[in-house]
Amino acid sequence: MIKAEKELRDYFEKMGDYNQAAKMLSLDMSTNMPKEGFERHRRALTRLSGELFAMNTAPKLKALIEELSLPEHYAELSPEMKFSVSLMKREFTENSRIPAELHNDYVSEKALANKKWQEAKKAGDFELFKDQLQKVIDLKKEIIAYKHPNEPVYDALLNECEEGMNTETYDKLFSELKEFLIPFIKEILSKPEPDDSKFNRIYDLNHERKAQEYLLKYIGFDYDRGTTAETEHPFTSAFSSKDVRITNHFHEDTAIRPMFSSIHEGGHAIFGQNVNPAFDGLPAENCRYAGLHESQSRFYENTLGHNINFWKPIYKDIQKIVPEFKDVSLEEFNREINHVRNSFIRTCADEVTYCLHIIIRYELEKEIFVNNVPVSNLRDMWNEKMQEYLGLTPPDDALGILQDMHWANNYYGYFPTYLLGSIYDGMFLEALERDLGDVDKVLSDGRIMDITKWLNEKIHVYGSTRTPRDTITEVCGKEVTAKPLCDYFKKKYTDIYKL
Amino acid sequence: MIKAEKELRDYFEKMGDYNQAAKMLSLDMSTNMPKEGFERHRRALTRLSGELFAMNTAPKLKALIEELSLPEHYAELSPEMKFSVSLMKREFTENSRIPAELHNDYVSEKALANKKWQEAKKAGDFELFKDQLQKVIDLKKEIIAYKHPNEPVYDALLNECEEGMNTETYDKLFSELKEFLIPFIKEILSKPEPDDSKFNRIYDLNHERKAQEYLLKYIGFDYDRGTTAETEHPFTSAFSSKDVRITNHFHEDTAIRPMFSSIHEGGHAIFGQNVNPAFDGLPAENCRYAGLHESQSRFYENTLGHNINFWKPIYKDIQKIVPEFKDVSLEEFNREINHVRNSFIRTCADEVTYCLHIIIRYELEKEIFVNNVPVSNLRDMWNEKMQEYLGLTPPDDALGILQDMHWANNYYGYFPTYLLGSIYDGMFLEALERDLGDVDKVLSDGRIMDITKWLNEKIHVYGSTRTPRDTITEVCGKEVTAKPLCDYFKKKYTDIYKL
Repeated sequence: MIKAEKELRDYFEKMGDYNQAAKMLSLDMSTNMPKEGFERHRRALTRLSGELFAMNTAPKLKALIEELSLPEHYAELSPEMKFSVSLMKREFTENSRIPAELHNDYVSEKALANKKWQEAKKAGDFELFKDQLQKVIDLKKEIIAYKHPNEPVYDALLNECEEGMNTETYDKLFSELKEFLIPFIKEILSKPEPDDSKFNRIYDLNHERKAQEYLLKYIGFDYDRGTTAETEHPFTSAFSSKDVRITNHFHEDTAIRPMFSSIHEGGHAIFGQNVNPAFDGLPAENCRYAGLHESQSRFYENTLGHNINFWKPIYKDIQKIVPEFKDVSLEEFNREINHVRNSFIRTCADEVTYCLHIIIRYELEKEIFVNNVPVSNLRDMWNEKMQEYLGLTPPDDALGILQDMHWANNYYGYFPTYLLGSIYDGMFLEALERDLGDVDKVLSDGRIMDITKWLNEKIHVYGSTRTPRDTITEVCGKEVTAKPLCDYFKKKYTDIYKL
Repeated sequence: MIKAEKELRDYFEKMGDYNQAAKMLSLDMSTNMPKEGFERHRRALTRLSGELFAMNTAPKLKALIEELSLPEHYAELSPEMKFSVSLMKREFTENSRIPAELHNDYVSEKALANKKWQEAKKAGDFELFKDQLQKVIDLKKEIIAYKHPNEPVYDALLNECEEGMNTETYDKLFSELKEFLIPFIKEILSKPEPDDSKFNRIYDLNHERKAQEYLLKYIGFDYDRGTTAETEHPFTSAFSSKDVRITNHFHEDTAIRPMFSSIHEGGHAIFGQNVNPAFDGLPAENCRYAGLHESQSRFYENTLGHNINFWKPIYKDIQKIVPEFKDVSLEEFNREINHVRNSFIRTCADEVTYCLHIIIRYELEKEIFVNNVPVSNLRDMWNEKMQEYLGLTPPDDALGILQDMHWANNYYGYFPTYLLGSIYDGMFLEALERDLGDVDKVLSDGRIMDITKWLNEKIHVYGSTRTPRDTITEVCGKEVTAKPLCDYFKKKYTDIYKL
């Protein structure tokens, strides 16, 4: 290893240490911090982010990257170091253009936005959030204009979330989907609804906690390299392949929702835990592609978890752990988890109407970042689109525009990656069945670890070193298209709803 | 405010931010970190501690302190800034003498010592821990020799834990106590033991969790400025007066122990939450005197919590929250919480034999730091002293020398402060009764918040700005003596055991 590589690795270690501390503060802000602890945490987080930003834009980093980019050195690097050098080169150029003060302002305002959003959501009133949201959106636009001066802002954001994506591709994929979905959902909703009365009851939170542990172990989450905590909204935070944290929220009025959140976050976490350990401490160690990441959480949650065969080998155990399901047959359970209906909350939606929730958000983000509509108009636009696509008007903003934490937390251009993840999943399912045979059979045999192993080898191990486009080409042998997802929906719901 | 003061305050803010992050990583290591996450956390913690050490010994800090120490500037400072400047001046001189590499080695080896201790404790075998313990003790001795070149090592450690203390004073106080205690305990143990059969059962951990919340609220812990978590060993970590974390361990075989741990940690936390908020971010904001801190946790735990009158207004509620006590009368409950017996574990001991547990540790620390006995001899010495003072020989090291986390975590000279805290408590009780009247009456009236308020005003609000000696003089009007504690024991146990 030449001196510059050794030095760059040490530099990554230092950045990694600061990042570890910053992530820890963030995680604590959502998990265990008392209300009044906010200001000190925000201050410390702003400080560490400032130091990280300075390290990301330091001349020393530039010199190391330039030296390692020389063809004779670059050729000698491992794939993960090649990736790291190319990525840092690009990011260095982009970050160096952002004034440090603007960056620090943004970090600090963003933390405040999160707090305001929480307060507004509690009150169910978007008015309490909109000014701070406008502030961070304006700062974000400014930052993106510095980083990507020649690109439309929203395209740059989409590409930051999922390399290779832009409005043109999303528009194409999403219209393909819409064309299929809108009449298809209408058809489903014309059929009789399943009876859900058995599910309307109070559930013991400790049963839900135990079910989470059972399910996470079942799908392959490693508790030596990960733990769980409780938050208002479920999420996953990866410190390294050896330390991945899952959070969840348990509900008294539903045991189903938290179980599927467990499986969803479990999918993210299994990805994080199975990146090549040689990448530890390098920029390649986490998957930075949101669509690809969501494809894995959603593959576990939907493609596997919403398949009756997933439950066949374990449903008796689940009934023991959650005795509230004692008198619910597997067939009834399956009807309820695949119960299609228009509803307010994205994360509670079935996998079919879910797509419309995302399309609404994608269209609104285009309004914000392409058409520059002021934030104060967003609530009305949200409510109109809900009426248009789902036939519902939210009774308050907590059930409407305030339901998601994304805009309060720097996730712009992120929402469409959920649906992109499902589009990938349609394609991954085809590839999986090509390699392992009928997925119903693999699941009903209880061989889920064969699937986890397949995903580990085909996708997870690469971390960030392979772009989503290359991953799709390698695994599926074709370009991205929504057709396999539509086919999957058609087959599955024709059967369940006797269309 | 002159420029140098403003700059020093900014400097404290920066150190405070790093400290916040470092504390967060430490807290997470004990609460929610998965096993395999250790190395990355240790690395990040070592890095931040190194940066903090550099800030603590930087020429810039020296220049600011020197300027503010000039009589004309110093005279203008607030009491908390006066304290900060004096403290930093002393610490700067001491810390500057420690080679940075030695400091970093120590931080890193200490984190490893904690891990090794956990493994050894699990295996019940001191052999697995002793080499790493020897390593950190040797490093600690070296550090102390740099910091305090003209002081005996153990005196320096005792003074670092509790300003003003040394072996001479502890020897005097502890012999005073021993002289009273040894025949007194013999007399108690000659009396019939209370029947504890009702308490030997399985307790629901969720009942214990709810009891903790009830008790913490009852004594005045503010949940807006603090939260709780679960760890192997209970402790309290204060980030600021607005953010104090309590941890506890819940046990299936006893609900009493976790309830008293809650009250104990609650005492620490109430101290932390009630320091003058003007001290926030300054070195004065936490109480740095271990004896004074322990006096507060132990005042709540023992002086108040082990008094039957504490429970009179709330015992009915406790029976509802912990239905396992449904058939236990208050009188039976009181006999059991004040059940004196020789036992292995310090943190399970009654308040009388507890004193002997501390005296054993104090005598062993003198062996380590005064007589320089090698660590490999410590287990035998521990077991001999247990036999001598408590008539017991631990069946394994988990019940013996490995029971406490202190030596694995840089707490040397700390153990005696627990007992010193109780000695203070004897004196504080006298002062409290002088001001508020008979404590039995205040407690049985349910006016515990009067006591919390009294402690807030007399002790907590000062944070670190008043030394323990000055606190005792101000509050009690006399020098420290063990007599009030002995009188308290005598009165209480003569009554309970009909001596």
